[in-house]
Amino acid sequence: MAKDMTLLWGSGSPPCWRVQIALEEKNLQGYNQKLLSFEKGEHKSKEVLEINPRGQLPAFKHKNIIVNESYGACMYLENQFKSQGNQLIPEGAADVGMMYQRIFEGQTLFQKLADVLFYTWRVPEAERHDSAVKRNTEALKQEIQTWEGYLKGAGGFLGGKSFSLADVIVFPVIAFFFRFGANENHYPNLAAYYNKLKERPSIKNTWPPTWLETPGQEALKDL
Amino acid sequence: MAKDMTLLWGSGSPPCWRVQIALEEKNLQGYNQKLLSFEKGEHKSKEVLEINPRGQLPAFKHKNIIVNESYGACMYLENQFKSQGNQLIPEGAADVGMMYQRIFEGQTLFQKLADVLFYTWRVPEAERHDSAVKRNTEALKQEIQTWEGYLKGAGGFLGGKSFSLADVIVFPVIAFFFRFGANENHYPNLAAYYNKLKERPSIKNTWPPTWLETPGQEALKDL
Repeated sequence: MAKDMTLLWGSGSPPCWRVQIALEEKNLQGYNQKLLSFEKGEHKSKEVLEINPRGQLPAFKHKNIIVNESYGACMYLENQFKSQGNQLIPEGAADVGMMYQRIFEGQTLFQKLADVLFYTWRVPEAERHDSAVKRNTEALKQEIQTWEGYLKGAGGFLGGKSFSLADVIVFPVIAFFFRFGANENHYPNLAAYYNKLKERPSIKNTWPPTWLETPGQEALKDL
Repeated sequence: MAKDMTLLWGSGSPPCWRVQIALEEKNLQGYNQKLLSFEKGEHKSKEVLEINPRGQLPAFKHKNIIVNESYGACMYLENQFKSQGNQLIPEGAADVGMMYQRIFEGQTLFQKLADVLFYTWRVPEAERHDSAVKRNTEALKQEIQTWEGYLKGAGGFLGGKSFSLADVIVFPVIAFFFRFGANENHYPNLAAYYNKLKERPSIKNTWPPTWLETPGQEALKDL
């Protein structure tokens, strides 16, 4: 029981979700956790700021060691619990290389998704431009096609032949893409990957509760 | 001699520089390398695209394993050459946690620097707003103060008591900050860190050649 760990998280946030998946994969169940609401501004609450002064979720702590950056928390857990649960860094150099390549390309994927989905939330009204929206949408389309290509004839996982940190980290971003209405028929390789991994226990057990309760959104349905 | 490695790089680019530092730290000298010019658009050349289809530098290859993402390349090198050269992941959990936290916060630092320094290059003229420039500048100021605080009374390195991947990865961003004119007197802790690390052989040996040849810039002198 991982009673010496605390995770404050928000439902549907890929950064939060990947830490939850990493904890499951490393058999670190039973940690202290609290689901907070972004809508209510709870990520700016005192209990978050005490762990994460940036006022962001996740906020993660192991004993007195704080690793709030979600990529960092996943890597920290693998480093500290190497021989517990599933090994998340593969053995072969080729798989290690591909894993790290995809992990960091995953940031570009999420950034381009966020540029489209969070545009009106991030950009003050007086600074919005249709030309920017169009450019962001085209950039996202191209990025998604890149990933659709990566999964063509791949070993079934993002980092090669086995489930790895690349899947822990990037799967939530791909799930986010479909949650926002992307058409599975347009992206058959991504959809096959998504539908296979969503049955994996670490992922199924941590599925965002708000996604179970409410229908998906449609923002990306025409992509 | 690391003759089975190839690095295509551009001078003064933090992503390129960190891979060069990692190679030096792991005693991987003698790799094939080529300095290319961003100004001449050489990052979009055929020889880059063959390794890095995104047309970005660095482009890095070990045997037939490609890891172009600079964070990924540094981590790959440490993973594959653990016992060669300097160990870049510390032993203690507290240092490992802080190392990963700073590594990923380093992305926020670089993003906020880029939002200010590359604004006119990234944003088409018709979409530029003084309000955005002002907001980006304020966000950078706040971010830099955060890092100035991190280095106050710290062990001398970003990840704790020893030189680690956090320094390999984030030092070039801090050097970039001073290269663009930041006043060392305004940021004494960052300046002390910068001046100490610039004498480290891995860093000195890979100092951007264009920075040796031309004077620093002034964009951040009033920050």
